[in-house]
Amino acid sequence: MASENAISPTRSEDYPEWYQQVVRAADLAETSAVRGCMVIKPWGYGIWENIQRKLDNRIKETGHQNAYFPLFIPLSFFEKEAEHVEGFAKECAVVTHHRLEQKEGRLIPAAPLEEPLVVRPTSETIIGASFAKWIQSYRDLPLLINQWANVVRWEMRPRVFLRTAEFLWQEGHTAHATREEALRETMLMHEVYREFMEEVLAMPVIPGEKTAGERFPGAVSTFSVEAMMQDRKALQAGTSHYLGQNFAKSSDIKFVNEAGDFDFVHTTSWGVSTRLIGGVIMTHGDDDGLKVPPKVAPYHVVILPVIPKPEAAGEVREYAEKLREMLRESSFDGERLSVHIDNRDMRGGEKNWEWIKKGAPIRLEVGPRDIKSESAMLYRRDKGHKDKASVNLNELKNRIAGVLSEIQANYLDTARQYLKQHTSTEIRNFDELKSYFTPKKLEKPEIHGGFVLGKWCNDQAEEKRLNDLKITIRCLPLQQSGTSGKCIVTGREATVDAIFAKAY
Amino acid sequence: MASENAISPTRSEDYPEWYQQVVRAADLAETSAVRGCMVIKPWGYGIWENIQRKLDNRIKETGHQNAYFPLFIPLSFFEKEAEHVEGFAKECAVVTHHRLEQKEGRLIPAAPLEEPLVVRPTSETIIGASFAKWIQSYRDLPLLINQWANVVRWEMRPRVFLRTAEFLWQEGHTAHATREEALRETMLMHEVYREFMEEVLAMPVIPGEKTAGERFPGAVSTFSVEAMMQDRKALQAGTSHYLGQNFAKSSDIKFVNEAGDFDFVHTTSWGVSTRLIGGVIMTHGDDDGLKVPPKVAPYHVVILPVIPKPEAAGEVREYAEKLREMLRESSFDGERLSVHIDNRDMRGGEKNWEWIKKGAPIRLEVGPRDIKSESAMLYRRDKGHKDKASVNLNELKNRIAGVLSEIQANYLDTARQYLKQHTSTEIRNFDELKSYFTPKKLEKPEIHGGFVLGKWCNDQAEEKRLNDLKITIRCLPLQQSGTSGKCIVTGREATVDAIFAKAY
Repeated sequence: MASENAISPTRSEDYPEWYQQVVRAADLAETSAVRGCMVIKPWGYGIWENIQRKLDNRIKETGHQNAYFPLFIPLSFFEKEAEHVEGFAKECAVVTHHRLEQKEGRLIPAAPLEEPLVVRPTSETIIGASFAKWIQSYRDLPLLINQWANVVRWEMRPRVFLRTAEFLWQEGHTAHATREEALRETMLMHEVYREFMEEVLAMPVIPGEKTAGERFPGAVSTFSVEAMMQDRKALQAGTSHYLGQNFAKSSDIKFVNEAGDFDFVHTTSWGVSTRLIGGVIMTHGDDDGLKVPPKVAPYHVVILPVIPKPEAAGEVREYAEKLREMLRESSFDGERLSVHIDNRDMRGGEKNWEWIKKGAPIRLEVGPRDIKSESAMLYRRDKGHKDKASVNLNELKNRIAGVLSEIQANYLDTARQYLKQHTSTEIRNFDELKSYFTPKKLEKPEIHGGFVLGKWCNDQAEEKRLNDLKITIRCLPLQQSGTSGKCIVTGREATVDAIFAKAY
Repeated sequence: MASENAISPTRSEDYPEWYQQVVRAADLAETSAVRGCMVIKPWGYGIWENIQRKLDNRIKETGHQNAYFPLFIPLSFFEKEAEHVEGFAKECAVVTHHRLEQKEGRLIPAAPLEEPLVVRPTSETIIGASFAKWIQSYRDLPLLINQWANVVRWEMRPRVFLRTAEFLWQEGHTAHATREEALRETMLMHEVYREFMEEVLAMPVIPGEKTAGERFPGAVSTFSVEAMMQDRKALQAGTSHYLGQNFAKSSDIKFVNEAGDFDFVHTTSWGVSTRLIGGVIMTHGDDDGLKVPPKVAPYHVVILPVIPKPEAAGEVREYAEKLREMLRESSFDGERLSVHIDNRDMRGGEKNWEWIKKGAPIRLEVGPRDIKSESAMLYRRDKGHKDKASVNLNELKNRIAGVLSEIQANYLDTARQYLKQHTSTEIRNFDELKSYFTPKKLEKPEIHGGFVLGKWCNDQAEEKRLNDLKITIRCLPLQQSGTSGKCIVTGREATVDAIFAKAY
């Protein structure tokens, strides 16, 4: 290691470039030959599989069932909801042909489709067409469906995990007999997301409602959970929408209510995506690379056999196997421990640094000396990379799940402190807001304040003034103080609390 | 129930229409507004989730890791392997634009792409581009990757689950230093598929190699597992390909071998898809609907509360809950029992028939009389729909997993007998072959013989004669008799055993 840190540049030297270097060093993903589309490599995909499984459990426990709908949306369907199509038209990939033919030695698209097909950017309209068939009476409600799928939104400035042309996500779609029930569903999933982000990803978030200008195209109200990255920008980590009867009307989803009258259903939709992996990187990562919260780590423990001379190889490998089998009997977060032995033939230091950069929660070095003392050398990713402890096997067996819980808790605590420390409640007017969000010219790196929690007068026209500062209202937190004061933007009397921030 | 059977027409009246009716009656899937694309409904998707999870475990246990690659393939990549592009060009959906614009009141594709993008029909070429970056030395080999994804092959005659424009699948892609190792991998996954089909789907298959004419476009050799449906046609249920160095050369996947020389890797690919759900329907289904093998059933047990009068509702519901909690403590095939209480407000007979048609392995009726005797009325989908037994709760708790195992075993046995009974080893020449595969005109329904296991001279030119009979050589079974005899097609001396059949 030439430098003190494994990642160059460091966060404070150049945050965006640090992010790219962590993605590379932790072997999470890479760009592909297709503009804006990423390749998610095994370590990154392993994190996604854990996110999927643990969120899917929560989605099912709250009564939803998974289903799968077509990748393609006929143009005519897509057009049905005016605000919706307006919101997505600029970023649609469009299929126009269904064959390739050789012509003058070149392969060209042939057989034009009668109606072009949009590659789904989100599935409200295509799922709405099924809902219209499935729902006749109030007995068919609520209808609670979720889909795990890929979606495509053509991005002119893609960024791996955060903003890619194709990404993986889940999208929940539900239909209800009443506004109240649909709103309750929206809030339920909003809370499921909050709990998931904090408990599983160790990522503290602020749950709240979006302003009108920041709503999902076609929604009546949008709720989001907003996390703070280590450059103090906000990441919108998950959204839940109450769609009113807008999509029901455009897709003709009618039902006979208990009184025997026809009515349109009230729908919701809600989703999180592979963007969450970007959130994990930027919430927990440090200048040595990624730190994966144990609850989503593809391996909880990586065993590193130390083989000082070839004769020791057999004995050390056997000991490592025994250790793995022992540890796999433990469970963490309701699942068996995932333990990997890295038997690759490469220098020990290099191998060790690879797992630091990948952010494996626990590393265990085992060599001839450890065998003699029936122990292993324990390294934790939440501590310094030289910080180690020789731990007896019996103790290790008893403590391993506890150590993982500690690491998980430490990550959450650290992130909570960071969020708290960089959320100001002191900003009183637009000038102060401006100054808070203007990096000091002489400072290197240029860094702004963070989040501002302040009063907002709810005047949509005035919200545009925030564009000049390159900030937005991230959300109106669910937890409102109930006090009055002066709107930060306009100086008018205001009662609503809002979070102002720069955002991804 | 007006008719004796829940499904009309029955299998013997009209097999293809029976299939469509089972898909509908079991609420598995439906067609969508997008030509050839299906909507997989919760019961169908639940089966797919179980297939996914249980096959994924096997894929990981054999050392593979999951990753994710772009949905889109640049035309220039796709063109690289000549046979490959030839094989897929006719069924490619092509993205040509990345925006929609309003023009004269209509929405039209705008912003043409510089290079059209093919929606992946399979991912050899796009994954090959990544492999070329990831592999430098023999130390990087073997590279063992799997992807779960949607793929698109434009179908002119789509059929739900069996042949759809979009389908879900897994595709394994591996790279190896030597031919021998790549062949070993191909055979390993071929065997994983065989074991999975038989042990999990209760679907007996014949593993074997494809003839040259039936190979995957670009492969050196293709192996498939072939199952027999109840119309005696073959279903190719999964394929494993040894691709030689063909794709390595077209994608430039080179490595430095142990001797220090450059060489191209040897690659394999292998996949199964949502087509397997069609296989499950046609292997096990009867004239009352679907029979889901317990190992992939979304619910192992469905509890049907019987409420003769409203006052009993509370007591019955409570008993059903208690029963569910008791049963959920049991496990089957390494997982907790999945138990569903159907509390919907509808007639008991209708509800009961719904679960027969959906093929839930076990139904338990509970009403006031059962509460008194501390028992439940047990119905098994592998027995007649009137066949029932009152079982004491304690006994039920002890027996439930055993009953599921019995049902699973019964399905496999029945399917094995069917396969055996309809596989002829008696056909000696082309005339007999013709007669075997020609339905008797006066017979209703018109049904052919089944599979023929016979000798084949390996002359590719002669294979085309089978087209007239609308049959193909399904595979050359791995298990060869080693005897000689006369080729069924040409009458020449031949040593190879082959399976001849009509196929989906």
